[in-house]
Amino acid sequence: MCRWLAYSGTPILLEELLVKRDRSLIDQSLHSRLGATTTNGDGFGVGWYDTQGMPRLYRSTHPAWNDRNLRELAAGVSSPLFFAHIRASTGTAIQETNTHPFRYGRWLWMHNGLIREFQRLKRELVLAVDDSLFPSLEGTTDSETFFYLALTFGLERDPVDAVERAVGFIEAVGHRHGVEQPIQMTVAASDGTSIWAFRYSSEGDSRSLFFSTRMDTLKALYPESELEWLSDETRIVVSEPLGDLPGVWNEVPESAYGVVQPGQDELATFTPRAA
Amino acid sequence: MCRWLAYSGTPILLEELLVKRDRSLIDQSLHSRLGATTTNGDGFGVGWYDTQGMPRLYRSTHPAWNDRNLRELAAGVSSPLFFAHIRASTGTAIQETNTHPFRYGRWLWMHNGLIREFQRLKRELVLAVDDSLFPSLEGTTDSETFFYLALTFGLERDPVDAVERAVGFIEAVGHRHGVEQPIQMTVAASDGTSIWAFRYSSEGDSRSLFFSTRMDTLKALYPESELEWLSDETRIVVSEPLGDLPGVWNEVPESAYGVVQPGQDELATFTPRAA
Amino acid sequence: MCRWLAYSGTPILLEELLVKRDRSLIDQSLHSRLGATTTNGDGFGVGWYDTQGMPRLYRSTHPAWNDRNLRELAAGVSSPLFFAHIRASTGTAIQETNTHPFRYGRWLWMHNGLIREFQRLKRELVLAVDDSLFPSLEGTTDSETFFYLALTFGLERDPVDAVERAVGFIEAVGHRHGVEQPIQMTVAASDGTSIWAFRYSSEGDSRSLFFSTRMDTLKALYPESELEWLSDETRIVVSEPLGDLPGVWNEVPESAYGVVQPGQDELATFTPRAA
Amino acid sequence: MCRWLAYSGTPILLEELLVKRDRSLIDQSLHSRLGATTTNGDGFGVGWYDTQGMPRLYRSTHPAWNDRNLRELAAGVSSPLFFAHIRASTGTAIQETNTHPFRYGRWLWMHNGLIREFQRLKRELVLAVDDSLFPSLEGTTDSETFFYLALTFGLERDPVDAVERAVGFIEAVGHRHGVEQPIQMTVAASDGTSIWAFRYSSEGDSRSLFFSTRMDTLKALYPESELEWLSDETRIVVSEPLGDLPGVWNEVPESAYGVVQPGQDELATFTPRAA
Repeated sequence: MCRWLAYSGTPILLEELLVKRDRSLIDQSLHSRLGATTTNGDGFGVGWYDTQGMPRLYRSTHPAWNDRNLRELAAGVSSPLFFAHIRASTGTAIQETNTHPFRYGRWLWMHNGLIREFQRLKRELVLAVDDSLFPSLEGTTDSETFFYLALTFGLERDPVDAVERAVGFIEAVGHRHGVEQPIQMTVAASDGTSIWAFRYSSEGDSRSLFFSTRMDTLKALYPESELEWLSDETRIVVSEPLGDLPGVWNEVPESAYGVVQPGQDELATFTPRAA
Repeated sequence: MCRWLAYSGTPILLEELLVKRDRSLIDQSLHSRLGATTTNGDGFGVGWYDTQGMPRLYRSTHPAWNDRNLRELAAGVSSPLFFAHIRASTGTAIQETNTHPFRYGRWLWMHNGLIREFQRLKRELVLAVDDSLFPSLEGTTDSETFFYLALTFGLERDPVDAVERAVGFIEAVGHRHGVEQPIQMTVAASDGTSIWAFRYSSEGDSRSLFFSTRMDTLKALYPESELEWLSDETRIVVSEPLGDLPGVWNEVPESAYGVVQPGQDELATFTPRAA
Repeated sequence: MCRWLAYSGTPILLEELLVKRDRSLIDQSLHSRLGATTTNGDGFGVGWYDTQGMPRLYRSTHPAWNDRNLRELAAGVSSPLFFAHIRASTGTAIQETNTHPFRYGRWLWMHNGLIREFQRLKRELVLAVDDSLFPSLEGTTDSETFFYLALTFGLERDPVDAVERAVGFIEAVGHRHGVEQPIQMTVAASDGTSIWAFRYSSEGDSRSLFFSTRMDTLKALYPESELEWLSDETRIVVSEPLGDLPGVWNEVPESAYGVVQPGQDELATFTPRAA
Repeated sequence: MCRWLAYSGTPILLEELLVKRDRSLIDQSLHSRLGATTTNGDGFGVGWYDTQGMPRLYRSTHPAWNDRNLRELAAGVSSPLFFAHIRASTGTAIQETNTHPFRYGRWLWMHNGLIREFQRLKRELVLAVDDSLFPSLEGTTDSETFFYLALTFGLERDPVDAVERAVGFIEAVGHRHGVEQPIQMTVAASDGTSIWAFRYSSEGDSRSLFFSTRMDTLKALYPESELEWLSDETRIVVSEPLGDLPGVWNEVPESAYGVVQPGQDELATFTPRAA
């Protein structure tokens, strides 16, 4: 099982969340507490929006905890919006093109979970990817196929609708092939301005997903902390909490999604629908 | 452009052909003489049939010339039938699953050349791969897709017919999409007993392919050489000659194929046909 | 903390011990039970004596559990004497030249443990390496330096004496620099015929080391097992037992060494001595 | 033989010099024109000073031309002072710790050339490295040892004097061991503010080194170019010119060094001296 993190807010060095914290993402790659597997050593990736607002990727098949280039990059690069993902393969090859986040145009995507019996469903799912998108598929994972299905169903126009349709489609294909619970997922997607985070599974028992409390509340709660410089809009979404401070982390409910965006953030119900 | 080598005969250490020779395959990876590009540093692979007759692979994305594990393996492993391939990518990602030889069951496959405008043709070609084979596709190259098309058209039953149909199909798809000369190829395939080697291109100007002279003739030609211990059936097929000795290397004609097999070897015309 | 395994006996495919067993070494790389760290993902190495009796190495910085080449090699190569090691770095860089086993001439060496405060002691230890051996040092680990000290003190002539002197020297240097307990070790060394295995630590609380019961006893104990084809001389030495069968594994005592060799094996006390 | 580039001036994206130009450094890694070897595929490194003025490294053992992370980094990171280096090994292992630039504190260092018969001289050279610096040696190359000798001789206080003493020392050690021409070098060093570039060889036939013409002159020479936004202090130092424009590149003379610094740059004679 993978672990991931999405940040939006005042530009910070990537290392603030990837390396420095006790229970940072790199620490989690060695010892996950809530994950299905205890080690996530099958590669990792970081996607960040740069000063031109373009998404950049650093992905590697080495375990995150011993990749020196990751530490250098995290210490030298700051960003107002970035994703990080550590992978525990569910079977597909360990290679950079199978490593999250995935990118298309200005969009980043990462996924924790799986499409069950993907090898059996793959052909039909891949065939549903739009002709114009097909050549951009680079890897062999369920997660990337899921991304391209979401793009096919309109991710760039209406992200929630597109993901609901993509999941509905995956479930329909799965059921047709006798897969009872075709999908298990927490997903993050971004266009560089907002972050959409989804929690869902066919069996109604989804992997964990948390978002951080509003920054103004946290500043009031922890007046001695060093949070003052962070804007009130700053928000983190994670598959597993970073640290144990009470009041910081809020679990996303089952079958729900949240949007971290300029202005008021949102939380609403997620409902897969016929594609 | 890639370089490749196929060996069949008395079991020898892999290093005899991969490392030791002046102008060995590793040497060629640094300085190809007949290749379209002068450097082949985009990974390499070795496939050998082991003492149980099963095909084993060692593939890496490092340049062959600085991979220590390759030298160790080549010094420690001997085989009666092996393939080696050094890659110069024509655009797809540098990753082990895109590295030749490819394997399916007892079969090995390697390819020098390309399917032109593969990104445009890919969807249609991939869709033609048989349902039962589809989940075994692991990479994203034209060469692996070509292999699975040949398997779809019966490589395991009738290799020449299957490759002729696969090429005919690729050309038909290419022409439908306005690609005038869809394929350029030298290909080697083996089931562990025989080697089939093909030379063909849509434009009738195919990359080079050579087979070695019969061993009994070579022993007569070079009585002082150290060939005595090699069986008369020993044969090498290469994309580029190893060394300059007169009488050793024979060019495979345009649009032709050869079969290295127990008993009399064959050389015949290659004719793509409607799938 | 690392894990290792040494095998001597009837030639077997490497995969028999590295891959196939429940609780094989690869399984241990993910979930060590007796190790100091729970994950050993910082590279691995295999050293085997080939059919010419020469030691060959395959070493990689990838986690053992996701290295496909390792599985291929282990399935295709058999050997009468081989070492395997999975690494959890104690601080030095993750690179092939820091990966065990180390090799010099016909000798292989692997180490679980550490020289404490090695960075402070390194200069003095490295300086003690013999002039003729110095250029062969390739990496930066305590374990490789230890190997070259043992070679300096005569490993090739009298392995036990050489290791006792090397450890005595390391402890003397450590004490001079105020390091109270300079060394923690289980070590295996081989010349291709015998295996020497050492268990020792300055603090008298050494990491675990086990050897398998004599094969004739095991055959009597487990008459239904598939051990019949293994010679009576077959023996395995491991840092952690493979499997839970009663009567199979015997712990090497504190401050002791064993020799697996043609004829009667040995077990004796290990006593560091002044170099 | 390696290739390198050093940039100082108006902050630019790394890709401007590493990727975009015809005959960029990545292009040179495939086809060097002035280098001793035609391919530089044995790894590469980039060192840049970040917005806090700290040196950051990205180093890889993959060929520069097929490393996607390098292209991403180069597109997303800008810097006022950076080094880049592509390696053709002269024999030592291909591993990140042997890849340039090397770093110590705020200093970066890269080297094209070699210390001849380094394996024979290594012990004596390494022993001369200051005790306090010794533990920071991470790799096994002549180039890194040279860097640490320069640090030992005072690189941080007086760079030119330190390099002259380091070279004098290397030549003295070499001559004592019967090496007639112990060193061949172009070197770049930086503290984040200035760049020192050295050209020297024991045989007086040093590898090429060029610096770019003053920017105000270039702007006058090429009024139509897009150089306007670059400060007059902007300067590039390279082992091989980027592009063919007349008037842009000036060769550093034999046995000379240049300093790119705030205010007037310098060019003077380099004279190795007794350490």
